[in-house]
Amino acid sequence: MKKWIPPVSGLLTGLLAATVFFADFSPSTPAVTAEDSKNKSNAEKVYVPFGEKDEYYLMASGGHSGQMFIYGVPSMRHIRTVPVFTPDPATGYGYDKHSKEMLGGFTWGDLHHPALSETNGDYDGKYLFATDVGNSRAAVLNLETFTTKDIINVPNTSGPHCAAFVTENTEYMFLPTRFAVPIGHEYASLDDYSEQYRGVMSAVTFDQEKEKMDIAYQVALPPWSYDLSDAGKKSSADWAVMTTYNTEEATTNLEINASQADRDFIVLFNWRELEKKIADGQYDEVTGQKMIFPEKHKGGIYLVPVAKSPHGVDVTPDGKHFIASGKLAPAMTVFSFEKAIEAIENQDFAGERNGIPIIKYESVMEREVNPENALGPLHTQFDEEGMAYTTMFISSEILKWNPATGETLDRVPVQYSPGHSVAAEGDTVAPDGKYIIALNKIAKDSYLSVGPSHPESMQLIDLSGDKMEVIQSAPVNPEPHYAQMIKADKVKTISVYDKDETNKDAVYKQEDAKIVRKGNEVHVYGIAMRSKFIFDAKAERPDVIEVNKGDKVYIHLTNIDFDQDITHGFAINGYDLNIEVQPGQVNTVEFTADKAGTFPLYCTNFCSALHQEMTGYFLVKP
Amino acid sequence: MKKWIPPVSGLLTGLLAATVFFADFSPSTPAVTAEDSKNKSNAEKVYVPFGEKDEYYLMASGGHSGQMFIYGVPSMRHIRTVPVFTPDPATGYGYDKHSKEMLGGFTWGDLHHPALSETNGDYDGKYLFATDVGNSRAAVLNLETFTTKDIINVPNTSGPHCAAFVTENTEYMFLPTRFAVPIGHEYASLDDYSEQYRGVMSAVTFDQEKEKMDIAYQVALPPWSYDLSDAGKKSSADWAVMTTYNTEEATTNLEINASQADRDFIVLFNWRELEKKIADGQYDEVTGQKMIFPEKHKGGIYLVPVAKSPHGVDVTPDGKHFIASGKLAPAMTVFSFEKAIEAIENQDFAGERNGIPIIKYESVMEREVNPENALGPLHTQFDEEGMAYTTMFISSEILKWNPATGETLDRVPVQYSPGHSVAAEGDTVAPDGKYIIALNKIAKDSYLSVGPSHPESMQLIDLSGDKMEVIQSAPVNPEPHYAQMIKADKVKTISVYDKDETNKDAVYKQEDAKIVRKGNEVHVYGIAMRSKFIFDAKAERPDVIEVNKGDKVYIHLTNIDFDQDITHGFAINGYDLNIEVQPGQVNTVEFTADKAGTFPLYCTNFCSALHQEMTGYFLVKP
Repeated sequence: MKKWIPPVSGLLTGLLAATVFFADFSPSTPAVTAEDSKNKSNAEKVYVPFGEKDEYYLMASGGHSGQMFIYGVPSMRHIRTVPVFTPDPATGYGYDKHSKEMLGGFTWGDLHHPALSETNGDYDGKYLFATDVGNSRAAVLNLETFTTKDIINVPNTSGPHCAAFVTENTEYMFLPTRFAVPIGHEYASLDDYSEQYRGVMSAVTFDQEKEKMDIAYQVALPPWSYDLSDAGKKSSADWAVMTTYNTEEATTNLEINASQADRDFIVLFNWRELEKKIADGQYDEVTGQKMIFPEKHKGGIYLVPVAKSPHGVDVTPDGKHFIASGKLAPAMTVFSFEKAIEAIENQDFAGERNGIPIIKYESVMEREVNPENALGPLHTQFDEEGMAYTTMFISSEILKWNPATGETLDRVPVQYSPGHSVAAEGDTVAPDGKYIIALNKIAKDSYLSVGPSHPESMQLIDLSGDKMEVIQSAPVNPEPHYAQMIKADKVKTISVYDKDETNKDAVYKQEDAKIVRKGNEVHVYGIAMRSKFIFDAKAERPDVIEVNKGDKVYIHLTNIDFDQDITHGFAINGYDLNIEVQPGQVNTVEFTADKAGTFPLYCTNFCSALHQEMTGYFLVKP
Repeated sequence: MKKWIPPVSGLLTGLLAATVFFADFSPSTPAVTAEDSKNKSNAEKVYVPFGEKDEYYLMASGGHSGQMFIYGVPSMRHIRTVPVFTPDPATGYGYDKHSKEMLGGFTWGDLHHPALSETNGDYDGKYLFATDVGNSRAAVLNLETFTTKDIINVPNTSGPHCAAFVTENTEYMFLPTRFAVPIGHEYASLDDYSEQYRGVMSAVTFDQEKEKMDIAYQVALPPWSYDLSDAGKKSSADWAVMTTYNTEEATTNLEINASQADRDFIVLFNWRELEKKIADGQYDEVTGQKMIFPEKHKGGIYLVPVAKSPHGVDVTPDGKHFIASGKLAPAMTVFSFEKAIEAIENQDFAGERNGIPIIKYESVMEREVNPENALGPLHTQFDEEGMAYTTMFISSEILKWNPATGETLDRVPVQYSPGHSVAAEGDTVAPDGKYIIALNKIAKDSYLSVGPSHPESMQLIDLSGDKMEVIQSAPVNPEPHYAQMIKADKVKTISVYDKDETNKDAVYKQEDAKIVRKGNEVHVYGIAMRSKFIFDAKAERPDVIEVNKGDKVYIHLTNIDFDQDITHGFAINGYDLNIEVQPGQVNTVEFTADKAGTFPLYCTNFCSALHQEMTGYFLVKP
């Protein structure tokens, strides 16, 4: 196989050619002529025979699919796509009344960073959060049912990219904006960028009882781009960090113009202090939001200079350090929370930008790490001993190193161009250290070709031996940006919905199925069961719905098969709708009967030997 | 693990309890306490190390997801979801002008049966066809690019369920209807079902040069439900067969009422004769279609009695027989094409139904096969020696048997309730015989739980040993109804689109990028490249588009990175749109600028180290 030259922009090529890139590209290409013996053992490591289960769930962002991808590890089998920001007829998501309203008319999202809820800094297996860069939203999934429970719009921001990362006890998610926009998204000329545009960060809360998210307050940061973020842990639990780029405030050709300054910043803030500021009324009310303007409502927010255009910043499991990697500077920088706090106390500042104090680089930086020929460091994960694993986008590898010494411990090539990586329980106070998965942006010729648009590629790396070893490669739909990996036994799903006698749309007894007309509204209170629909128990044809053209139709459907894995679907042929009722679930679809005629209806989800017979008719009188 | 009772409707339970179901349920439950040694060898059989490729493509229907799922075999890795009937922001499908128009306003489909194009009865790797039961359409994918090229509505039918099966040289696909409806979908009371409703079959052609499908003619069959179909092969190449159910013409509670008659029918027809009939003008023009009414335009169509409620009918690779399996009758029946043709010549009929002659059962049936305790036979595939493999939905197994003798050769349990199965090159005149995959409807507890809605399950079975052996289980999104498996080297993809200098929307040189206003239409002729957009080469900010509120905007985008796997995306934050331009591709998105304000635009498909910088702004003046 030919040595592959990774995709590098013109500018970057120039930058890197000047250093080492073309001079000495090492580590060498992967050993594709694998020995049989090694493949045997790798095959056994990832094989999960029937009757056994995978050890971890991988919750991977689906990028511009808008969805969440659930995988099993180590098999790397794709178990389920869970719809979040995009309608999904496979599960009826975006078709039933509740999910349709939740989507608010949007047809897609760009799901970037998923984050599991935490208790005491550890994944608790209850909820999964996600952000949408495409249409600026945030969502939460309940892991009892793997369904999306709430979606909120995040105003004044444009692409809550960086993360839905949570604080140690899921008090907050801090959602910074990838793009600066004028507050309220108003029109403003780019000539007025520095004055009129802002990079608003939102402090989002989640009420577990109501399963509702809310925006506690926002912070009007400078008009920069904000990238990855992380919350503090243990001694740094009240703090959070996030990287910035384009502190040049360029308004065109960012490839060049946002890469001018030698340093960008990490924003370091104390959320307990910001919380107090809000309690004390130190904010302005703007577009209905409590907005902190750092130049006015001073305190709690600081800038830490960092090597240019950093992508990732990650807090070590012990909470003592944060590590940033500059995609244009081939270095990982270790910063100390303790030093930062001391510098803040001593007002050890090097001036300010936009009213925010800049902590002196020397006062907070603990170590710069520049492994030879390790190019394009992006994101860092950790193992159970606190060792760091950083993805190298350009040199296509994962590098294991010791944050306490800077020593390189191991390197493994991946195929190709990893963005993030994710370690088992990697963002917690106690990573597992068994596996790390490289989320590769380029698959090239790794799999059977499906045309010019290739899959992405995830590679599972075994950390249990002396050397890191890639043991499985899994193609994946576009596009996992980040993922989290949780021990399987932490997730407690339900298999059947409980009866809810308070739900007035529910029908649990066959004889209660009925059709009620109110003016031009038709309410069907129906049942789905193996292997029939019952809409009107008293009718000659209980599985037929007849309405008049123009009627508003509400079909409330209860699945009375309280058995594991017996899901029914409901579609009306030609009426472009499909919903799902899981075992015991009650669901409603609402639509206008705008076409007269004869339309068969049927169960879309194979449910029994007589599933084909689970049909009826929807008749619309002209 | 507890023995699992498969889901059976009340009626069926009764039926089966009367036979053998509860009395002696064999084969016994799967050996979940697998020996290590066996798992080792199975692990090795399915492991495809990096640098090697899978041996087969599996093209699996995505059911009510509306999409096609592409897997690699033997690894059973999901390589790509190819959008067909449902919009897919991951690939921009349904957002760009061309695909949006092709979808015709529909938001989903229920993709049932895929079929590969054939030359001389063998898969030729060029095209893949699919039908939509949800909104009655058919589609074709080009396998050079794995993209959907054409979608047609199939009028007068309601759910072209059975298949997009093709004749030996892809002359026709015959698309029967799952549901009977009045011609033209007009409103008609179910009291008039037998008189007013019809089960229309469509003969669909495909012009490979234009990549367009068309309906050559339709046949107004009786108002029954039509299920699986198959085309003849070799000596029977001019013939086709399809199963029916509900020949009782029941209009409610089909679970019971469509299961009354002891026999339903296989429709057997000679498409060369129907073609001739059309050429001779023996049809009526109805709703713009050439419609053959069998009771009037006699000849070429016959009924073959078959055990009640058959699901599948499959033609043997040698083209001599067709095998039907009755889901309510635990038997596979082997019929002879030779005998059928002889019976037709001799007018050896047992009367007629709806003007269609019924061939005497005894004159065409060659063998009834009733393996002990094999329950719920559905579909049959074949190996290289012509041996048959039939899925048993109720007894959850695949049964290998010899069509020439009826002898049972082997049985293997699968988990659980297989619908179809698919053998390697299984529908061709020359199956490969190496693998068969069970498409199981029920996964139950096979995988990590994702809540009450479980994945489906596909199980790979090794046919190379003395005994069939399940060697891998793969979870899958809802819902593969059928699949075809093709040797990987038959599929010849392209990796980059050729330049097309005749495309007036294309821009291949940076200096040619421009924005042209025509009244309130704004046409952007832009470029996507690593790592920037160029919309207007001469502007101060070439990556900014400024329009007025209410303008109709056309963005024509060319990806000028003619490099493998360098796909760019294009989204406007908050404007709910995303398109993709694959390497060398030109694509257009059309929308109205209905919101004034400032909206960042960005590349959604990670493309280089400076992908994050591949941004710009879409400014809409109030």
